[in-house]
Amino acid sequence: MRLNRRIVLATRPSGMVDEATTRLEESPEPDPGPGQALVRVRYLSMDPTIRTWMDDAPGYLPPIGIDETVRGAGVGEVVRSNSDRYAVGDLVVGLTGWQDYVIADEGAASMQVVPPGIEPPMVLSVLGATGMTAYFGMIDVGKVAEGDTVVVSGAAGATGSVAGQIARIKGATTVVGIAGTAEKCAWIVDELGFDAAINYKTDDVAASLRSLCPGGINLYYDNVGGEILDICLAQLAMRGRIVLCGAISVYNAKSRPPGPRNIFNLIIKRGRMEGFLVLDYLDRFLEAQIDMVGWLAENKVKHAEHLVDGLEHAPEALNLLFTGGNTGKVIVKL
Amino acid sequence: MRLNRRIVLATRPSGMVDEATTRLEESPEPDPGPGQALVRVRYLSMDPTIRTWMDDAPGYLPPIGIDETVRGAGVGEVVRSNSDRYAVGDLVVGLTGWQDYVIADEGAASMQVVPPGIEPPMVLSVLGATGMTAYFGMIDVGKVAEGDTVVVSGAAGATGSVAGQIARIKGATTVVGIAGTAEKCAWIVDELGFDAAINYKTDDVAASLRSLCPGGINLYYDNVGGEILDICLAQLAMRGRIVLCGAISVYNAKSRPPGPRNIFNLIIKRGRMEGFLVLDYLDRFLEAQIDMVGWLAENKVKHAEHLVDGLEHAPEALNLLFTGGNTGKVIVKL
Repeated sequence: MRLNRRIVLATRPSGMVDEATTRLEESPEPDPGPGQALVRVRYLSMDPTIRTWMDDAPGYLPPIGIDETVRGAGVGEVVRSNSDRYAVGDLVVGLTGWQDYVIADEGAASMQVVPPGIEPPMVLSVLGATGMTAYFGMIDVGKVAEGDTVVVSGAAGATGSVAGQIARIKGATTVVGIAGTAEKCAWIVDELGFDAAINYKTDDVAASLRSLCPGGINLYYDNVGGEILDICLAQLAMRGRIVLCGAISVYNAKSRPPGPRNIFNLIIKRGRMEGFLVLDYLDRFLEAQIDMVGWLAENKVKHAEHLVDGLEHAPEALNLLFTGGNTGKVIVKL
Repeated sequence: MRLNRRIVLATRPSGMVDEATTRLEESPEPDPGPGQALVRVRYLSMDPTIRTWMDDAPGYLPPIGIDETVRGAGVGEVVRSNSDRYAVGDLVVGLTGWQDYVIADEGAASMQVVPPGIEPPMVLSVLGATGMTAYFGMIDVGKVAEGDTVVVSGAAGATGSVAGQIARIKGATTVVGIAGTAEKCAWIVDELGFDAAINYKTDDVAASLRSLCPGGINLYYDNVGGEILDICLAQLAMRGRIVLCGAISVYNAKSRPPGPRNIFNLIIKRGRMEGFLVLDYLDRFLEAQIDMVGWLAENKVKHAEHLVDGLEHAPEALNLLFTGGNTGKVIVKL
């Protein structure tokens, strides 16, 4: 009998995930019952939201329990099946968790079969939850429009990089990305077609935005929260919108930091700030995926994956999202 | 020749308006030219926004200049006229400023003739900008709906008191007001029909809201900003809305205080926070006034005015809005 290696939450992190946070455990490979299939996990999706699930705080899903397998999305391959829904060899996507093997149950529709012809990592990135987050955040929540001046933070990340390109496709006149290294800034401008990039570690973000967006910001797609959100609030154009997608600058904070001082500018500028979760758009993924496949074929959307090898490295891979060590989507290959 | 007494901005206040902030000046009564009328100001509207105009900070109108008459709305009576638009005896409403006399100019449409039969103070309160702010903020921005649990801060103020009553008219199931004295709390419940009131000076606001709004807050109409906004953010129901109408708790702050810590809850709850200014709804005042006149006649909306006598007391009257010394609309009678 094979063993299932799994990474469990050992203690709740205070700050970044460290050696004490998780523990690698081994248990017997699970045995699929009637209507179930055994899935060998191949790729794990590293998403900032996983860090929020490790806190004992109310959220949109319950916190991960101590000694429970870390929750997370992944792609796997069906290796045994007692279900008509899953055939051996099928690729499936869902909340696999950080482990080698998982059971897919035809009753619980949490594992979806991946259509043939789609590369597995893309199912977790541009054609998966990350790309869908960029799509619905930019279009449905942000209502990006022709002529908009759009600013995206976390712009070299999996979501931000796609969000900026969608803004361009939808007619934004100016697309500015904020990222944390010169290489990332070069990538989003030279490869992805952003008009300009601001390196928040070396540039004066407020002054750069004033000069790049002289008419103010019509739409700010926020992945980071904190100081940059505050600066963008201050530079909002009339009827500007702020899409709250994530707040990676604060997920590892040991206590909840104060919010943006410039919130009153929402009154002066008649602005709107709105949060969303891509989970609410599950029933519309197909329409977005059809658009996205078209844009990929036309080379209007480019994407990058940052692969990390080995289940045991998942905790460090997660930290890359917060240290800015990645360009594009971080995926752990098992 | 009569003298025009006017209150000018002497220095920019740091904190509340005090003796050094304004100066009473006398100048000759202005002389209406062709197409103009001379207006004797009778009532001045005290609004929190006047305090924001005294700061040298960007806003939706330019700051009041040093040595300029304090800007503010008022109602006056036409006492001389060289204009077909204004007849002697007409009541007019507009930005009169804090002074005895003002010129109405038929070219600049800033002074509107008040229809006969409407009491002058009501033109500045429930049928004026204050009531309109409550109306459009609650209905257009907040999209109050049947079954909503609505929370209003500054609930015994001119805007909040009307906003809560409109929520009830529009089908809100639970309307909770937050105010600063036991008398105000009693007034909004006993007289205005709010379901409950929270005294933020003596009650635990967070605990009270948890108990009064067990399903969370669908719509928070915010007049105060600061701590109470933060608490309401934390208790937002799924897809809750926050209408940012004003932030009286921070207008007198000597430096801009930090914003709400719980802003991330807008993501978890897919919430929306939106600011507005009633100026944007000028062309729809008539429809709202027609509704409001009907509700007043049916006794569905009650209102209160807090009259202060004498132009020279306008600065202290303005401070009442921030010390909570008023119930309902503060109006200075000249």
